[in-house]
Amino acid sequence: MATTSEYLRIGELAERAGVSVTTIKYYIREGLLSPPTMKTGRTMGYYDRAYLERLMLIRSLREEHYLPVRVIKQILADRGDRPLSADEAALLARIGPSVVQRLDAGGPVLTRGQILERYGLSEEELDLMIEMGLIGDFNASDVQLLDALRLAETAGITRERFPVSGLGHYVELLDELAKREVRIFAHSAAGIPTDQLLDIAQRATDVSEPIVAIIRRKFILRAIRAELAVRQPETTVQKESP
Amino acid sequence: MATTSEYLRIGELAERAGVSVTTIKYYIREGLLSPPTMKTGRTMGYYDRAYLERLMLIRSLREEHYLPVRVIKQILADRGDRPLSADEAALLARIGPSVVQRLDAGGPVLTRGQILERYGLSEEELDLMIEMGLIGDFNASDVQLLDALRLAETAGITRERFPVSGLGHYVELLDELAKREVRIFAHSAAGIPTDQLLDIAQRATDVSEPIVAIIRRKFILRAIRAELAVRQPETTVQKESP
Repeated sequence: MATTSEYLRIGELAERAGVSVTTIKYYIREGLLSPPTMKTGRTMGYYDRAYLERLMLIRSLREEHYLPVRVIKQILADRGDRPLSADEAALLARIGPSVVQRLDAGGPVLTRGQILERYGLSEEELDLMIEMGLIGDFNASDVQLLDALRLAETAGITRERFPVSGLGHYVELLDELAKREVRIFAHSAAGIPTDQLLDIAQRATDVSEPIVAIIRRKFILRAIRAELAVRQPETTVQKESP
Repeated sequence: MATTSEYLRIGELAERAGVSVTTIKYYIREGLLSPPTMKTGRTMGYYDRAYLERLMLIRSLREEHYLPVRVIKQILADRGDRPLSADEAALLARIGPSVVQRLDAGGPVLTRGQILERYGLSEEELDLMIEMGLIGDFNASDVQLLDALRLAETAGITRERFPVSGLGHYVELLDELAKREVRIFAHSAAGIPTDQLLDIAQRATDVSEPIVAIIRRKFILRAIRAELAVRQPETTVQKESP
């Protein structure tokens, strides 16, 4: 895929990313963006697609998730868009297989026919879950997920109202989270003594589970409050006259 | 913020988004993208920033999270970039306050000084957690999170190796998840009879918690396997000669 640079004024770059020029300069000053290769004077330079994507990501981290600059810096450093270093890869090769063994739920425990019948799924719904990577060879972890979905169903979160395709949000965001967690672990665990490493790696998924649950609840609360606040009496949401 | 359209060849658009022209045409055919306003002939049109962002998102959903087209369609429809409809807003106004009441952990249970001492945090670490929206007025939910982090600490996930700023990944992705969950609920719960609605809304966060946990574990397993597979014997990863 081509990643040709374009020769752009900083103003054009700003417009494409949906931020102001001042903001771009601020990001460069803070070290979130590297200064572009400048050609003529101080307002033009070569920017490639990765630069624009990075800029748009920083905008979303600040404006949508209200993250401070030093946290954004950390997120950019940890993201999955660079290959692992040799050290990180070596660490993962050492601990990966045993963590896989621990997380792996083993082979099939039900047949396709049994799954369809027990969970009242249509062929199409099951196929979609398989396509999404949520269900594999019908092992114990697949059954766990299907049980959890059935529990939600009995609580009124029916598939009729909340179709299987809506699970795509969980796939997108939890897949992204999982990938980053694995990379961060490979990166940050470098200094852990070998005799402790395996034990820590084994427990990492378990001990971070409640952290994920609590943070999610906090943000559900924040999201509901934010949506309710938007609909306060008109006086509080009136726009300034242009 | 300006959202001026640019007059581009489809090939230039493709290059900016990092996909092929064939792929863009395929997305248009599948209804993931609307056809651009064409001007001269069939290869040029006006594309605005939102169009490019949407295209880049579709690319990432397909190439990074392996999602099928119909799931991507659903994700695009549900995303938080449009305001709630009047009906969705009305539903949220009806159920929001009682769900907030249920999720709300109440007022402060510890002082700042007690938090710092009990959890061995530096002033800076605590301030960063507050800035990230993870800690509020030191209520029961804050204490729950700090307890969960301490448990991880005793399991070897120390702040020395895994600094507080690394929690930014959880903030980014779980905030995004929570926002979408609230919106999807407001959207999908429209047909639920009023007498059941409040009960379902109250339970929705609880019953979806194990779903989140199980999917995350599945994807951690997948991510480790993927990283290990990259490092298989050279023969399996050799690139074809150009």
